[in-house]
Amino acid sequence: MTYCVGLRLNKGLVFMTDTRTNAGVDNIAKVRKMFTWHKPGERMITIMTAGNLATTQSVVSTLDERSKVPAERNPSLLEVPTMFQAARLVGETLRETIKMNSHSGQTAEAKFGATIIVGGQIKGMPPRLFLIYPEGNFIEATEDNPFFQIGETKYGRPILVRGFDPDMSFEQAVKLLMVSFDSTLKANLSVGLPLDFQTYRIDDFAPAHEARVEPDDPYFQTIATEWAGALKGAFDSLPDPTF
Amino acid sequence: MTYCVGLRLNKGLVFMTDTRTNAGVDNIAKVRKMFTWHKPGERMITIMTAGNLATTQSVVSTLDERSKVPAERNPSLLEVPTMFQAARLVGETLRETIKMNSHSGQTAEAKFGATIIVGGQIKGMPPRLFLIYPEGNFIEATEDNPFFQIGETKYGRPILVRGFDPDMSFEQAVKLLMVSFDSTLKANLSVGLPLDFQTYRIDDFAPAHEARVEPDDPYFQTIATEWAGALKGAFDSLPDPTF
Repeated sequence: MTYCVGLRLNKGLVFMTDTRTNAGVDNIAKVRKMFTWHKPGERMITIMTAGNLATTQSVVSTLDERSKVPAERNPSLLEVPTMFQAARLVGETLRETIKMNSHSGQTAEAKFGATIIVGGQIKGMPPRLFLIYPEGNFIEATEDNPFFQIGETKYGRPILVRGFDPDMSFEQAVKLLMVSFDSTLKANLSVGLPLDFQTYRIDDFAPAHEARVEPDDPYFQTIATEWAGALKGAFDSLPDPTF
Repeated sequence: MTYCVGLRLNKGLVFMTDTRTNAGVDNIAKVRKMFTWHKPGERMITIMTAGNLATTQSVVSTLDERSKVPAERNPSLLEVPTMFQAARLVGETLRETIKMNSHSGQTAEAKFGATIIVGGQIKGMPPRLFLIYPEGNFIEATEDNPFFQIGETKYGRPILVRGFDPDMSFEQAVKLLMVSFDSTLKANLSVGLPLDFQTYRIDDFAPAHEARVEPDDPYFQTIATEWAGALKGAFDSLPDPTF
């Protein structure tokens, strides 16, 4: 499993992923699930992947080769004119990769599935955030639906739903994501530290801040330790029923 | 879907279920998922069911007929000598019911699946709480694993894990369950109000308190409203990161 969240704030975008991949409980490894393409002053596009690792790595490599080899540059994430076209390119690449593997003899279609979050900004247009399905189609984050989760989404959802505010600062957003990831890490062994996160401020066309949160990160340890007490305090502050 | 939780406290047992059943989003109904058998002064056994409604109703009816028709009373939940035997009886009835339906031509085995929580006490022995799998085997709640959830378990789990304390009062336990159910109700349409709950105090051999929480229940509305603010307060009380 995996856990990735993309937030659309009024100030910009925030992305966070875990780094665990597993095939069974005794075959685990650490992989990067967040990838960024940017042209300084012109565009920045970040994607986060969940699902079959062979599929997602192949999608990322395909997108990456297209952006590196000049002859194959069209279409490329560094050339597409809009974020909508970027989402379409990622969706098509994902669908083709899944189709290619499914036709190779193995029929368990779900095994090759993957889901991708794409977010970013191209000069002259606002930042946009998309969720791409294995079928290659996608939906966009809106004011009513301002964040996307992929992978093991349920444990960390209640705090996101209650804590999210489009006006929040990047610091508050990273704190919110850390609480959401902490709840998920404590409940599902297939989601694991370290975490990668990135913040993007509107019209920067480069990441504002990027970091890897290792298991010994003092701030994450503070969150993991103090959240239990804070939650207990919140719970105690509610009135007891009488019967 | 469904959501049921059984807690093993030092003071006794607490059970809570939702009451929604659905086959698709446009075919929903209200059903009771909590059933109690008791002999005053001698035993009380409560079960909660999740899964295929035809299966769970058949299991409950079979268990109920066995306890009502004298000639078929052996084995019956009102006659078994121990809670372990009660769990075994429920498990066997569940397995047989699923097997019977699966052999009737329909092969999608999972469709007939169900999971059951069984808890209670028989005189002279401590209260016990079991989780019964569709295969008929079961596990028991212990000090390390003092509660069971069935159905849509993930959204409501983080608060249970952080808030549970075996020494808590029945009032605090019901409050904890209401918060856990509120998080689940807000995230999954297939879990719905009203809620049924029951508390059982050791050596009472009858429910201490039983109630149905309707959508207009003022206490539940207080929890649903104030929990959002309390959670937000807890979140705000944590330090922000700096970067």
